[in-house]
Amino acid sequence: MGTESNWGRWGLDDEIGALNLVDASTTLAALRAAETGQVLSLAQPAGPGAGVPPHRNKSARYMDRNAGDYALGARSPDGFRFAEDTVTLSTHSGTHVDALSHAWSGEELYNAHSAANVRSTAGAKRLGAEKLRPVVTRGVLIDLVEAHGAPLDPSTPIDAEHLIAGYEMAAVEPSAGDAVLIRTGWWERSHGNEYFDLEPGLSLDGAQWLVAHDVALVGADNYAVEVQPSPAGTTFPVHLHLLHRHGVPLIENLALAELAASGRKVFVFVFAPIPLQGSTGSPVTPLAIL
Amino acid sequence: MGTESNWGRWGLDDEIGALNLVDASTTLAALRAAETGQVLSLAQPAGPGAGVPPHRNKSARYMDRNAGDYALGARSPDGFRFAEDTVTLSTHSGTHVDALSHAWSGEELYNAHSAANVRSTAGAKRLGAEKLRPVVTRGVLIDLVEAHGAPLDPSTPIDAEHLIAGYEMAAVEPSAGDAVLIRTGWWERSHGNEYFDLEPGLSLDGAQWLVAHDVALVGADNYAVEVQPSPAGTTFPVHLHLLHRHGVPLIENLALAELAASGRKVFVFVFAPIPLQGSTGSPVTPLAIL
Amino acid sequence: MGTESNWGRWGLDDEIGALNLVDASTTLAALRAAETGQVLSLAQPAGPGAGVPPHRNKSARYMDRNAGDYALGARSPDGFRFAEDTVTLSTHSGTHVDALSHAWSGEELYNAHSAANVRSTAGAKRLGAEKLRPVVTRGVLIDLVEAHGAPLDPSTPIDAEHLIAGYEMAAVEPSAGDAVLIRTGWWERSHGNEYFDLEPGLSLDGAQWLVAHDVALVGADNYAVEVQPSPAGTTFPVHLHLLHRHGVPLIENLALAELAASGRKVFVFVFAPIPLQGSTGSPVTPLAIL
Amino acid sequence: MGTESNWGRWGLDDEIGALNLVDASTTLAALRAAETGQVLSLAQPAGPGAGVPPHRNKSARYMDRNAGDYALGARSPDGFRFAEDTVTLSTHSGTHVDALSHAWSGEELYNAHSAANVRSTAGAKRLGAEKLRPVVTRGVLIDLVEAHGAPLDPSTPIDAEHLIAGYEMAAVEPSAGDAVLIRTGWWERSHGNEYFDLEPGLSLDGAQWLVAHDVALVGADNYAVEVQPSPAGTTFPVHLHLLHRHGVPLIENLALAELAASGRKVFVFVFAPIPLQGSTGSPVTPLAIL
Repeated sequence: MGTESNWGRWGLDDEIGALNLVDASTTLAALRAAETGQVLSLAQPAGPGAGVPPHRNKSARYMDRNAGDYALGARSPDGFRFAEDTVTLSTHSGTHVDALSHAWSGEELYNAHSAANVRSTAGAKRLGAEKLRPVVTRGVLIDLVEAHGAPLDPSTPIDAEHLIAGYEMAAVEPSAGDAVLIRTGWWERSHGNEYFDLEPGLSLDGAQWLVAHDVALVGADNYAVEVQPSPAGTTFPVHLHLLHRHGVPLIENLALAELAASGRKVFVFVFAPIPLQGSTGSPVTPLAIL
Repeated sequence: MGTESNWGRWGLDDEIGALNLVDASTTLAALRAAETGQVLSLAQPAGPGAGVPPHRNKSARYMDRNAGDYALGARSPDGFRFAEDTVTLSTHSGTHVDALSHAWSGEELYNAHSAANVRSTAGAKRLGAEKLRPVVTRGVLIDLVEAHGAPLDPSTPIDAEHLIAGYEMAAVEPSAGDAVLIRTGWWERSHGNEYFDLEPGLSLDGAQWLVAHDVALVGADNYAVEVQPSPAGTTFPVHLHLLHRHGVPLIENLALAELAASGRKVFVFVFAPIPLQGSTGSPVTPLAIL
Repeated sequence: MGTESNWGRWGLDDEIGALNLVDASTTLAALRAAETGQVLSLAQPAGPGAGVPPHRNKSARYMDRNAGDYALGARSPDGFRFAEDTVTLSTHSGTHVDALSHAWSGEELYNAHSAANVRSTAGAKRLGAEKLRPVVTRGVLIDLVEAHGAPLDPSTPIDAEHLIAGYEMAAVEPSAGDAVLIRTGWWERSHGNEYFDLEPGLSLDGAQWLVAHDVALVGADNYAVEVQPSPAGTTFPVHLHLLHRHGVPLIENLALAELAASGRKVFVFVFAPIPLQGSTGSPVTPLAIL
Repeated sequence: MGTESNWGRWGLDDEIGALNLVDASTTLAALRAAETGQVLSLAQPAGPGAGVPPHRNKSARYMDRNAGDYALGARSPDGFRFAEDTVTLSTHSGTHVDALSHAWSGEELYNAHSAANVRSTAGAKRLGAEKLRPVVTRGVLIDLVEAHGAPLDPSTPIDAEHLIAGYEMAAVEPSAGDAVLIRTGWWERSHGNEYFDLEPGLSLDGAQWLVAHDVALVGADNYAVEVQPSPAGTTFPVHLHLLHRHGVPLIENLALAELAASGRKVFVFVFAPIPLQGSTGSPVTPLAIL
């Protein structure tokens, strides 16, 4: 099941991938999912304090100017005072989206763009985070914690059947352009202190089902969306299937407990990443409008 | 005109300010402004390449891993390859929002929170960027380039009368919770190479009018929202009136040309900043849903 | 024992402290300690990989350009290729020197310079690392691992009597301007994975003895020179006695095993820190010329 | 004139290059050049404020903790207070040494080490800055400002004949292991505001002469040691001749005015770079002992 790839589907120059599946009419239809108008942030706290796997750089925030400077005598002309800061972020820490330049196989990125476009000095000249078009679309929550009665056990694979059951719980049919959010309970269970290793997550079977139904975005409340460890003989096959072959961005480290508690499975989903030029990912604060 | 301040208005502990003015019913009503479903990003390109005033740190992007590593022989188990990067950002560069900890006068921040909460090590323990609740509300474009027939001249003040005229062009009445976006043409005119100095922008008169009408957010396509230089005897009075006295976040460096070209003055406005813990601002990709 | 302080001893403007004790004649005399001409580095590996206590930022190195860029097709005019990088360093990680702005008590730094000189934006306007004059002087190794027959136990205090015995083992008298290096074995024992907590180190008694003998520099192979925890009712008293009251810079995290293995207790000591403007410390590669 | 290369000269694994030419007996002999014992730093101020060419990142210093925190009420147990900072440095800014991994041609670094060792993630696994052995050797100042009567004009090449004349002024013969420091006056003339472009500097002819005399280190008071622009049909030929073919580290941006004013042409030269693991260069504070 599932197409071989989406390469060429939206033209030889395409850098947008499955986000193409959300057009204005999709957005307009999605807005009808709003019932109460309540807006929920699906982002974890970002910056210093956000957990990162050991191989990535921790975030830091440096105060370039703060109240202490005034306490020590800095001038405040006409009473005006201000504070500023600089932050350092791994683009793959906290709640973030993987740009289509993040993962590939062989010499080509998604849509046959040469991998040689991803370099030290210039960063990702193709498929960088600034190409991740913001979208507003229908969101569907697949709540496996609710289905399972508890956070999923380590290394539980999430297959097509779980997704089908999730859509049934949501009482809607899969629709092109959907944003599918998967709650595994990993973040709630691990308190943010565990990363890839042993995380429950999407299997290749599940990813193929999502692609076959033309979803635009896939997100989860774990560190890599997909189940770890990867099945023998494969390495991050879901990343390759979704990002590389089909141009589906992945949103990682979502905060889904509050959304789950609302009881809403279908909602307006807003995706507005920071257009970091040449980056392979971006922090993002996805929203659910209930 | 205008209240003395909003301190205490939403309780002694409030750190949310004028964003409180957007509740679920405001959002639900705002969604009705959507006509076509087209989604526009109002963010300038971010990260390396984004202009910063000379006194702030330039952004940098460092590729922690990229395609060059594979070209040199790095292992790609089962064909899997990836790239990652780290970015450094001044939180007051590019399209960003000023958190309520950014500006104050005397020893107190907005709502009488002690300025001693804004320190080197812990950052902003009160009113940090993580307190900027995301909102979806009605957006109104005040297009002064259209009204003037050209980008505003340097140091042009934008007063209440201009805002009133702008609302008339938009054919709506001001409403509590509105997000008001002011197009001065500064960015288009300066090509991003000029900053505070001499920018046209909001006057204190204009700011007072906005507060009197209970707007939730104010943004502009210049570097500091307000006109520069400040009138004699004042320093950034609009920052103090909006951020400090009334808790109205400011969105700076908006990209408004495409929105202006759409002809739409009223739209659904989406604000979803990154919850950077303890920061005095955050990059943001505001959206207009047409 | 020990003077009350060195404040005013070298003038009211002095920012050099005990490094004043090394003049040209001291250096010329010290050079006579050279016997074989062998040069040893006393620095641990620096940058990424250097251990830092949990409350400090880890170092990072980012390759701005590297061989991978050429493997991917970057131009190499006339065959010329190059690589460059940017590093981020906590100035109190790895082998480093504490500048005299690093520690103080009350409102005044060493020599009555106002603590208000140490701020966010400008850094240390007084007593910054750029004031640490390089010196070449006589070095004396106090090898407590040799004396004890093993690395010192956790929290062992090093008193005047140990220093006296060390000088006796070195068969020289204390002399003004000496650089005294104390080998506790902490680094060798802890493999760089333990920091302040429970480290053996200099006691206030030992520090007073060093000051009474007008040493110019004190270094050790542990993270804070002084014993931890501090005695009840005191907090880093050796830092205050040496840095704050007497202007004696501290060199921390020295690599002393190779020097110890040489059998030499007296040698030419070279101290050439990086003049980081406004920093409170500096990485340094101290040398012993045998 | 000049050997083809030093590849293999010190063994197939060598990563030390011309620094091998300084052994213990060279150092011992060099120490005899000390006459007065005065110690001069040859380093420019480092860190924030140090000029960098436009294509490199500016340095920044961030105060992680400072006196302002105490002014705002941070606890100071038993009166102890401290300040700390983090710095970001381009390793090729300010007074620094080019490691042997900095420049090459084709697929091989100095001594046939594969260029594939210089990557994003691991940095320079061969010939990194941590391989730059500290040395103490004889320094010889070639003072072309004195010889010319003024700072050299832009793009003046420095040939063998100038070096020969400089050694004659110093009244010594070239000797294996010498550190040769060339004063062009570029820094004094440009006030640190000009970089590579048009700098006077060493020609290939001069570099060949230095290699033929087995110098260990070459430094200058300009940004790239060698004359710019490079002669037609070549790009940084002196970098390739010295670093790549002969393993001679280059010290750039030296501060030589004070040394020149001393009248001393021969002195003890101390080179103690920071062993930044995997970096392509290091900040350094070279010393002259007069």
